[in-house]
Amino acid sequence: MNHFNLLTTDPNSKARAGVLHTDNGDIETPIFMPVGTQGTVKALEQRELVELGAHIILGNTYHLYLRPGEEVLSRLGGLHRFMNWQKPILTDSGGFQVFSLKELRTITEEGVAFASHLDGSRHFFSPERVIEIERCIGSDIMMVLDECTPYPATYDYAKDSMERSMRWAQRCKDAWVNSDDRYGHKQLLFGIGQGSTFKDLRRASLEALIDIDFPGYAIGGLAVGEPAEAMYETVDLSTDVLPADKPRYLMGVGTPQNLLECIERGVDMFDCVMPTRNARNATLFTTYGKINLRNAKFKFTDTPIDDTINSYASRNFSLAYIRHLFNVEEILALQLATQHNIAFYLWLVKTARIHIFAGTYMAWKQEFLAQFNAGIP
Amino acid sequence: MNHFNLLTTDPNSKARAGVLHTDNGDIETPIFMPVGTQGTVKALEQRELVELGAHIILGNTYHLYLRPGEEVLSRLGGLHRFMNWQKPILTDSGGFQVFSLKELRTITEEGVAFASHLDGSRHFFSPERVIEIERCIGSDIMMVLDECTPYPATYDYAKDSMERSMRWAQRCKDAWVNSDDRYGHKQLLFGIGQGSTFKDLRRASLEALIDIDFPGYAIGGLAVGEPAEAMYETVDLSTDVLPADKPRYLMGVGTPQNLLECIERGVDMFDCVMPTRNARNATLFTTYGKINLRNAKFKFTDTPIDDTINSYASRNFSLAYIRHLFNVEEILALQLATQHNIAFYLWLVKTARIHIFAGTYMAWKQEFLAQFNAGIP
Repeated sequence: MNHFNLLTTDPNSKARAGVLHTDNGDIETPIFMPVGTQGTVKALEQRELVELGAHIILGNTYHLYLRPGEEVLSRLGGLHRFMNWQKPILTDSGGFQVFSLKELRTITEEGVAFASHLDGSRHFFSPERVIEIERCIGSDIMMVLDECTPYPATYDYAKDSMERSMRWAQRCKDAWVNSDDRYGHKQLLFGIGQGSTFKDLRRASLEALIDIDFPGYAIGGLAVGEPAEAMYETVDLSTDVLPADKPRYLMGVGTPQNLLECIERGVDMFDCVMPTRNARNATLFTTYGKINLRNAKFKFTDTPIDDTINSYASRNFSLAYIRHLFNVEEILALQLATQHNIAFYLWLVKTARIHIFAGTYMAWKQEFLAQFNAGIP
Repeated sequence: MNHFNLLTTDPNSKARAGVLHTDNGDIETPIFMPVGTQGTVKALEQRELVELGAHIILGNTYHLYLRPGEEVLSRLGGLHRFMNWQKPILTDSGGFQVFSLKELRTITEEGVAFASHLDGSRHFFSPERVIEIERCIGSDIMMVLDECTPYPATYDYAKDSMERSMRWAQRCKDAWVNSDDRYGHKQLLFGIGQGSTFKDLRRASLEALIDIDFPGYAIGGLAVGEPAEAMYETVDLSTDVLPADKPRYLMGVGTPQNLLECIERGVDMFDCVMPTRNARNATLFTTYGKINLRNAKFKFTDTPIDDTINSYASRNFSLAYIRHLFNVEEILALQLATQHNIAFYLWLVKTARIHIFAGTYMAWKQEFLAQFNAGIP
């Protein structure tokens, strides 16, 4: 059974609009997924995520495995019920965090041994174990365990790493097929392509995944320091190889421009900490560019953040007020800035989708980026 | 003109219910006023304060004078408009903060010179200057500049300090009468009684204030370390002296029990950082007692905070989830705990008011405190 309906493709680019069906709700693509690492999207209430129009959020397997841990999640009925979130959740595999631990981890064919960044306690993630944890979390979309190949990597390193990740992908698929949904809703599994920026490795990786057959495919190992052009080329190649009738998820990307460039190249799903993390650093994304509220020029600015964006934060508070809140280190600063930035990212993908349906995507993209890059008039 | 309507007095105690009218809305007393020191009640959105039923919030003159400062407040149209809050605001005079600076301040008959806790810059607050700043803030209820006499104080210190505060109260009254409302709404001025726990000084202080004549009277200099019984006795004496047709505000108090004891003794208005500050330390006030979510016993507790309290936070999240949020230091922990604690304090005074009207205040108070002090069943 296919969970994805491709609804239309832009006549002037590879941009596409579709719907991904899950038991906890439909996800209209292209979509941006706010990151809720530890069972909360930082500084946002769950009802606010609904209000902002989030279709799906992310959870992080590594962090949730450490805290609150499987016993709490299991006894409290899975992550949806634990955090009181009724819409879809996607969990990454935890691989990205584990591999980031560097000296604290050892990789073998069997899996990856690591020490917790919290207390140094020893743990082991195998592909099978990760599926077991994601089952316990109860995410609607689970990701396979893979190594996010660092950039730059030698060809040999990238090849070995990718090939092991593909063997792990097969083991994840087997573990998924041989295990049950935990909380009454179906849990999908997405494969992840690797291969750094080497075209033949990328192609081989995706062909291996297609051969294994997943409900969706992610493009991993990008936004890790490579030039933007290399990212775009790798995405372009990937969406050429991937089947049209499955969703494509570009992991960890990115800026508003990155999103639009990759939507143009046929990507359906995005996640990134940028809107939430930047919000907490007083950086706002608006239709007239990126602004930093620490700048003294906003001290007396009596206009709201962005009237184009339909959120409580975007329309009801002056830049001067939110600047003051950052200045005096008030929590409300983080709340309002995060609300706005998530509203902006969701507005961006929703507006992109409207223009894909209208056949005006490329013209709109050009116009939007011109305004966005020009900054405040 | 009198801004306060006394609606009823409890047959079995001095508890009373009334309404204080301001141009920005009515305040049903007894009331608890959440503290919004720097132009925000920490971790709460303004729309959430409305949702929780807050009638009035506090602002702090010392903090707002330093940041964002009078020029920003003035150019942005006063604190209501700056923070997008349409209901009443009360500002304390800043005296409490200035006197807390200890080595950084010098007091004379003229006023108090002090160094900013932020950058050491030198400033001077006279009674007249404080009225000017409160006019600029635009609070609906302004407080006179006074010295919050430390506890314990010698009789002579308390007497000199109180008498100076009463001379300052007269100067504040004059400055208020001789200045205009700034933003189209009337700004009231309340006097503040001092005198530590010396009965004759308290009486003399209040008689001096009544002689000056204010729209409302505060009982200051309590909740500064004196035994609860001394606080209750001082409150009892104060409400005996104060006119029945003016609102009485007990500054900086206190615990749920403190509130009920002082409502019983005829107090109408309260403010305290306790519900908000304790929330940020993982301490929740509930109808079944005070609980600390850091306690491991809540690790798997699948019940909401308190079904009696009608707030999003109180009813929609398990103790286990909020405990997890504190454990991993997530901002949402502060948001939900603060929402609940403010909802609890507002529920407490609202329920007290209902029982004052019903003539059942004393019985309800006893029953409530028995349950509150007994803790979780």
